[in-house]
Amino acid sequence: MARALVLARRGLYTTDPNPRVGCVLVRDGNIVGEGWHEQAGEPHAEIHALRVAGSAAPGATAYVTLEPCSHHGRTGPCALALRDAGVTRVVVAMVDPNPQVAGQGVALLEKAGIEVMVGLLEEDAERLNPGFISRMRRGRPFVRLKMAMSLDGRTAMGSGESQWITGPEARTQVQRLRARSSAIMSGVESIIMDDARLTLRAEQLKLDEAERIVRRQPLRVILDSRLRLPLTAACLQEPGHTLVVTVPDHDLEKCRRLENAGAQVLALAAGEDGRISLPSLLRWLAENRQVNELLLETGATLAGAMLNAELVDEMQLFVAPTLLGGDARALFALPGLALMADQRRLVIHDMRAVGRDWRIIATPEPTSATGDTKVP
Amino acid sequence: MARALVLARRGLYTTDPNPRVGCVLVRDGNIVGEGWHEQAGEPHAEIHALRVAGSAAPGATAYVTLEPCSHHGRTGPCALALRDAGVTRVVVAMVDPNPQVAGQGVALLEKAGIEVMVGLLEEDAERLNPGFISRMRRGRPFVRLKMAMSLDGRTAMGSGESQWITGPEARTQVQRLRARSSAIMSGVESIIMDDARLTLRAEQLKLDEAERIVRRQPLRVILDSRLRLPLTAACLQEPGHTLVVTVPDHDLEKCRRLENAGAQVLALAAGEDGRISLPSLLRWLAENRQVNELLLETGATLAGAMLNAELVDEMQLFVAPTLLGGDARALFALPGLALMADQRRLVIHDMRAVGRDWRIIATPEPTSATGDTKVP
Ligand SMILES: NC(=O)c1ccc[n+]([C@@H]2O[C@H](COP(=O)([O-])OP(=O)(O)OC[C@H]3O[C@@H](n4cnc5c(N)ncnc54)[C@H](OP(=O)(O)O)[C@@H]3O)[C@@H](O)[C@H]2O)c1
Ligand SMILES: NC(=O)c1ccc[n+]([C@@H]2O[C@H](COP(=O)([O-])OP(=O)(O)OC[C@H]3O[C@@H](n4cnc5c(N)ncnc54)[C@H](OP(=O)(O)O)[C@@H]3O)[C@@H](O)[C@H]2O)c1
Repeated sequence: MARALVLARRGLYTTDPNPRVGCVLVRDGNIVGEGWHEQAGEPHAEIHALRVAGSAAPGATAYVTLEPCSHHGRTGPCALALRDAGVTRVVVAMVDPNPQVAGQGVALLEKAGIEVMVGLLEEDAERLNPGFISRMRRGRPFVRLKMAMSLDGRTAMGSGESQWITGPEARTQVQRLRARSSAIMSGVESIIMDDARLTLRAEQLKLDEAERIVRRQPLRVILDSRLRLPLTAACLQEPGHTLVVTVPDHDLEKCRRLENAGAQVLALAAGEDGRISLPSLLRWLAENRQVNELLLETGATLAGAMLNAELVDEMQLFVAPTLLGGDARALFALPGLALMADQRRLVIHDMRAVGRDWRIIATPEPTSATGDTKVP
Repeated sequence: MARALVLARRGLYTTDPNPRVGCVLVRDGNIVGEGWHEQAGEPHAEIHALRVAGSAAPGATAYVTLEPCSHHGRTGPCALALRDAGVTRVVVAMVDPNPQVAGQGVALLEKAGIEVMVGLLEEDAERLNPGFISRMRRGRPFVRLKMAMSLDGRTAMGSGESQWITGPEARTQVQRLRARSSAIMSGVESIIMDDARLTLRAEQLKLDEAERIVRRQPLRVILDSRLRLPLTAACLQEPGHTLVVTVPDHDLEKCRRLENAGAQVLALAAGEDGRISLPSLLRWLAENRQVNELLLETGATLAGAMLNAELVDEMQLFVAPTLLGGDARALFALPGLALMADQRRLVIHDMRAVGRDWRIIATPEPTSATGDTKVP
């Protein structure tokens, strides 16, 4: 199974919107076949592994990182393919995260008289697909917040000047975070200030398969209630799609001009604060654009709003060894936080050097109230 | 010499204002004596080692982390003691950092026909005594800035509320930083807000020798131009001394009352901004109070002023896994810093977990202008 997990990871940047899955076939203690899901539209991991095994498959045990499917996709249900190939035992790391179909693949296998075991290295398998699992179980993407900051917690100068806080190694890490994400989300203010392109650049990814990876550009999602996005914004000229999200009573003329400039415009009901409702938007992205992992690259305002709504699942902070001072811009606007008792606790999972910068991975500790129902 | 350095470190918390020094005597490849300087007023490392070696000293090689002294202190010059004991070779890690006497101990030894070698593990030896070396070479203490901060670079809530940002393990580390320091310095604002005691507490040090260590309380230095320190401040009731530093035209009556309450009051010429001149104060502390290592524990105002004056040699930041938000207090007030080009670059030397918090050790990169002559 450990080997199957390694194989699955090879699809990290390419299977979107499908999950990353790996499969190993073992007979008499020898690996007779292995495979992984490489790209949406191409065969599943099990089919690749069975092709490699060929006539060695009968009597084999299949190790699969995700429950084999039971539905008729492009290649038929994998559960039946395993049965037809004569596999006699299937070890599954985790069942399908979609509560509607979970267990159906296992049931199909068991009905065919195949011995099934579930749960081996389950946690590792879950870590492979946080976005796919979140979309299936919670109906919203897994949200990863990336921020570049100085050691004194500043993301930009008071004037908004912010380019190049961190070094090239950190930027490569950010490119890889983009590459594994289905979409990148930003507040319009950041785009106005920095004219960020929010794209994958092959030369910065520093991966063998970079050229293949950048063929899929993550969806760019820009929150812009008042349609302030300049028609000349760099991100509108780039390959891939830009979705501008606004509220219903928007300027139709500006909307049409943005669409002519290459954007797609989505009007979503506003929340109680008159701004785009963040939970609704995440639900919409999961349902309509199959967004698994969402990378949030934005300023203190939207970052703080997402955090306050308890919609941030993971934070990756890139810390540059520099001080910008007390007049520079904050990492998070957290309006209303006035007492130590209200502080937002985090769990730090990892802190390591990335070039001359440092990367901190943390997750917010849930507060008592749940985000989706919280009233500001 | 590595062994001598280990021995020297045993004096980390007790030799003040003397340097930490270790000595090992080796004859025919065996250690025949070793010692370290334990406490001011007690014998130097060489004397301890010679006492242990006794009749085994003649013909031995002495490894000493600091050049043996040539002056007549309580125990006579160590250089002569080594000669009188028949030591034939002396290996010294570093010469006396006082430019006025550097090399005199070596000269005395060489005059006595003893072979002398200088410079073995010199950098490690220097790291033992940053404060003593700074006082001797630069006429000012080595300044270590300690701050407790949230992950978003905040030291206190907007209201000033700040107790217990970090956990007990971090507080133990801070106690040890205090224990190795000759003095602890703070702005009066922090004392007014937090009523900090700025003392060593044996139970928090978590060291075998805690009781002995806390017998010496570091000097507390409070910067207070307008003598706003409350007469009831907790630090005035604690063992050890509190020095209140102010500017010349102070309220004599308030001054007398502070002295009655246990403080010593020092009036120092103000700098161009009307506040206490920081370079003058550091010079005064080195010359008049033999301050080697100075621990700066204060708020963003004085921390920023010290940083701007380029008087901070090392920063130890204790980072708690929590967010306090954009309305909370900054780590450093750095007025005038408005452009990315003006950012203050640091070198990060170490980042590690301390309980549930993290400790970052960094040093400021010098800017082109030198601090002492800089005009705001
Ligand atoms: N260091 C980094 O990692 C990093 C990354 C990105 C940006 N930045 C810096 O951050 C600064 C800009 O940040 P910012 O804080 O001003 O703005 P921001 O977070 O980039 O964008 C905020 C804007 O998003 C829109 N928005 C729509 N719905 C929202 C909702 N529900 N909640 C919150 N916002 C919503 C609002 O504008 P409307 O009301 O008009 O919709 C709001 O003003 C720039 O200086 C940029 O350089 C730094
Ligand atoms: N998290 C931590 O590590 C930590 C540690 C300590 C304090 N704090 C927090 O920090 C806050 C207080 O900080 P603060 O920034 O307001 O004040 P501060 O740095 O503690 O003290 C500043 C005061 O020192 C005096 N001073 C005298 N000469 C000065 C000079 N040359 N340069 C600068 N200051 C000089 C000034 O008062 P005069 O003009 O009256 O002399 C100035 O207002 C409190 O909320 C406290 O809880 C946090």
